[in-house]
Amino acid sequence: MSSPTHPAQPPHYAELCRMRRHVKTIESIGRLLSWDQETYMPHAAAAHRADQAAALSAIEHEQATSKRLGDLIAQCEADKGLTGDPASAEAANIRQMRRDYDLATKLPTDLVSELARVGSQSQEAWKEARQKNDFAMFRPWLEKMFGLTRRKAECLKKPGAELYDALLDEYEPDATGAQIEAVFTPLRPRLSNLVKEIVGRGKRPGDAFLNVPFAPERQHEFGQVVLKAMGFDFSAGRLDVTTHPFCSGMAPGDTRLTTRYRGEKFTDALYGTMHEGGHGLYEQGLPKAERFGQPLADSISLGIHESQSRMWENFVGRSREFWEWALPHAQKFAGGSLDAFKVDDAFRATNLVQPSYIRVEADEATYNLHVMLRFGLERSLISGELPIKDLPGEWNKRFKDFLGVDVPDDRRGCLQDVHWSFGLIGYFPTYTLGNLYAAQFWETIHAEIPGLRDGMRRGDFAPLLAWLREKIHRHGRRYSAADLCAMITGKPLSADPLMRHLEGKLRGVYGL
Amino acid sequence: MSSPTHPAQPPHYAELCRMRRHVKTIESIGRLLSWDQETYMPHAAAAHRADQAAALSAIEHEQATSKRLGDLIAQCEADKGLTGDPASAEAANIRQMRRDYDLATKLPTDLVSELARVGSQSQEAWKEARQKNDFAMFRPWLEKMFGLTRRKAECLKKPGAELYDALLDEYEPDATGAQIEAVFTPLRPRLSNLVKEIVGRGKRPGDAFLNVPFAPERQHEFGQVVLKAMGFDFSAGRLDVTTHPFCSGMAPGDTRLTTRYRGEKFTDALYGTMHEGGHGLYEQGLPKAERFGQPLADSISLGIHESQSRMWENFVGRSREFWEWALPHAQKFAGGSLDAFKVDDAFRATNLVQPSYIRVEADEATYNLHVMLRFGLERSLISGELPIKDLPGEWNKRFKDFLGVDVPDDRRGCLQDVHWSFGLIGYFPTYTLGNLYAAQFWETIHAEIPGLRDGMRRGDFAPLLAWLREKIHRHGRRYSAADLCAMITGKPLSADPLMRHLEGKLRGVYGL
Repeated sequence: MSSPTHPAQPPHYAELCRMRRHVKTIESIGRLLSWDQETYMPHAAAAHRADQAAALSAIEHEQATSKRLGDLIAQCEADKGLTGDPASAEAANIRQMRRDYDLATKLPTDLVSELARVGSQSQEAWKEARQKNDFAMFRPWLEKMFGLTRRKAECLKKPGAELYDALLDEYEPDATGAQIEAVFTPLRPRLSNLVKEIVGRGKRPGDAFLNVPFAPERQHEFGQVVLKAMGFDFSAGRLDVTTHPFCSGMAPGDTRLTTRYRGEKFTDALYGTMHEGGHGLYEQGLPKAERFGQPLADSISLGIHESQSRMWENFVGRSREFWEWALPHAQKFAGGSLDAFKVDDAFRATNLVQPSYIRVEADEATYNLHVMLRFGLERSLISGELPIKDLPGEWNKRFKDFLGVDVPDDRRGCLQDVHWSFGLIGYFPTYTLGNLYAAQFWETIHAEIPGLRDGMRRGDFAPLLAWLREKIHRHGRRYSAADLCAMITGKPLSADPLMRHLEGKLRGVYGL
Repeated sequence: MSSPTHPAQPPHYAELCRMRRHVKTIESIGRLLSWDQETYMPHAAAAHRADQAAALSAIEHEQATSKRLGDLIAQCEADKGLTGDPASAEAANIRQMRRDYDLATKLPTDLVSELARVGSQSQEAWKEARQKNDFAMFRPWLEKMFGLTRRKAECLKKPGAELYDALLDEYEPDATGAQIEAVFTPLRPRLSNLVKEIVGRGKRPGDAFLNVPFAPERQHEFGQVVLKAMGFDFSAGRLDVTTHPFCSGMAPGDTRLTTRYRGEKFTDALYGTMHEGGHGLYEQGLPKAERFGQPLADSISLGIHESQSRMWENFVGRSREFWEWALPHAQKFAGGSLDAFKVDDAFRATNLVQPSYIRVEADEATYNLHVMLRFGLERSLISGELPIKDLPGEWNKRFKDFLGVDVPDDRRGCLQDVHWSFGLIGYFPTYTLGNLYAAQFWETIHAEIPGLRDGMRRGDFAPLLAWLREKIHRHGRRYSAADLCAMITGKPLSADPLMRHLEGKLRGVYGL
């Protein structure tokens, strides 16, 4: 790969890459502000943190939309030595810089900084409202955030397109609400039926494995052992504790994961850790050392990002082979409470299907129903069809319809997710896209890595990581999600691999 | 107090305060970068962290030296409604903003970046030279740094003043080398004689109290109990662990302390925590909520800052009354290893006097001799009177003279401190100024707070903190250190209170 600072690069391209690098450096500081806010920031610092975030995003936005940057992009686009071959790294970089620049220049600076400021305050309000189970306390903030986000969508939207698509495009470039609906619509009854079949069966494997005492400090050590086996580099990353687990691919050499522990239900923490670890491995595999600031050092889309986290969490972590390796480690750290369990107990217990209220704790089958619920709701909230005040009622009604259970309170209903509180709207569907991509990649991986399952039994995940690095991580944003999927798997995205995976595994677990 | 956003404020003053607030907001983000680098940043992120810090300080410097900011200061200075009463908050703010602006604009950018660049290399050279005990290796870097710092002093110095004063002024505004010499000169023989008397006595109290096993996690809990009793607000601050303890008054509502633990020598950690806690209480007491960005929300000087840390560390923490309250807590957290000790053991052991080579490990009496040594040397090094090549010899000669012991090698001599390696020259004397201010304030506090000692015996430090808030913290930079001292104590700064404190306490401990 040619380097942007290679003497053969024309000066306008080199300057463009330098300016982008500076913008992305400012952005990376903003990520530290967010990470710190979630992890260690004292409560009383929240108001000033909002000012800091607003000041920094204003500076970043100003630089990301500067006339000089636009001129350089145009000059590079016109330079056939750079863009003559559309498949070249330079051409891909310039195309994506054009996309980013156009998106950024469409947003007025005051709106960007208002979104950052109100979002930061609103997130604090959400924390309190969730804790107090008080939707009324959060409602004015949610109205503000949807109002601001609607203004944002109006700035970004293409003529004739749905407002929602303009938001979705930020997270899943080129996807539309209608396309997603077209994939989700046939998936939902298949999933609902599978879940109903399982629940209807009445008989379920025991869940004693999930309910043993396991000290949080020891869970933390166990999680680190698993992350190391996955290939996560702790000299360039961390694992901390937050209310809501996340991964921040903060900067070159700096990928931070978070998880959360309780004294029991250790697999919730484990799968949270593996999930964020999957994101973290993608971030650590991007060519940031060589290309920081260029689109070719960035991830493609949230759907592809989520395919990485879900693959490690569900396709690896909920496999029988994983437990053959992991169970002795878990037993060691649990200090006795897991000693009586066998691999089969672990495998079955971690594949229980049980409709429940909390998305992040949902099993592999019901999870996608949680996502589809949010996708439908946020699309109606943005269009204005559904007023914010009706959200709790509509949430609970649809939840009953999708999952067959009654939501007991808003804390376990529409107040459970942080996303909307700071304007992440159009983000939820990427979770299910991730599951679909993961399933489709996983079938190809099985065909292309002989001995994968045997390696997993020994805790050897290196061939899998090497495959992901080679096929996905190293490319950054060089290809679109759809093109990458077709390149790797030979087919467009489909719901079939995910259904094959779930039906195959769960029919086995439940003896259907 | 009138607020800067009060409708009665003229628009140029309001705009000035807004611009300053923005500059200080950027600066506060830089403090988070530093704190994170010392606490949680992964090792591999170091190179990018330097890029982040450089990008942010360039933005901050550009704003702090902008022509608009200078014009607004001039316009406010000329507005008699603001500056007509020199004692008003507005007049004080404008004076200090002028000072900051002139300091920032007097230094040529190339010198600032040269100091940063060479300072960073020189600090690396210092680390290696100290480790190898090799002054010759460090000498060319020290010559460069004193040369660059001399150039800096020439840019900043007032006509007719000593070069050294221009450097000192950055840390202790309006102080001069001659004034400090006038205070230090009578102090030195009195301290030296006291130390010699103690050492000559031969008999010393036992130090077993200092050498018990004490788990770091439990030390951390004990430290937090002490900080809470001192009045440190954990909803607006934190305590973390770093190699070198520090306090960062990062932002409004955000004051972060660090300390370090070993499995023994728990009082090292305790006094580190109380010291940084004293700095932290000052930061939490500054009127940042109302005035962030204005000089009236900043601390006066390093000497006054150090008076706060030293007061809590030495005047409170090394008192018999403190141990009457603290010993039962320490015993509880130590889990048995302190049970046999009495208050008197704790009091005597934490007041041992023993000449030693390393300043940061020195006791309350010898500490100031270490500082005076450095003050005299750096003043002669800047004036050129003492050539760098003669530093080790001169250090060792004076050390023998001040502390009565021979320095075994340069690692434990002139290579021990990091300060000079990156240009902190004129900084050392503020450590002893802090001790002097603390002692002088302490005598006044005793006169003005009846029952202070009885309260301390019960762990009630609220009257002390209230006094510090009222007399010192809330004023920010409204008064100079000298004026504040005279206002509070009715006298100019003198060495007598510190000597009375040390002689009184140590004669008791040693039965002289």
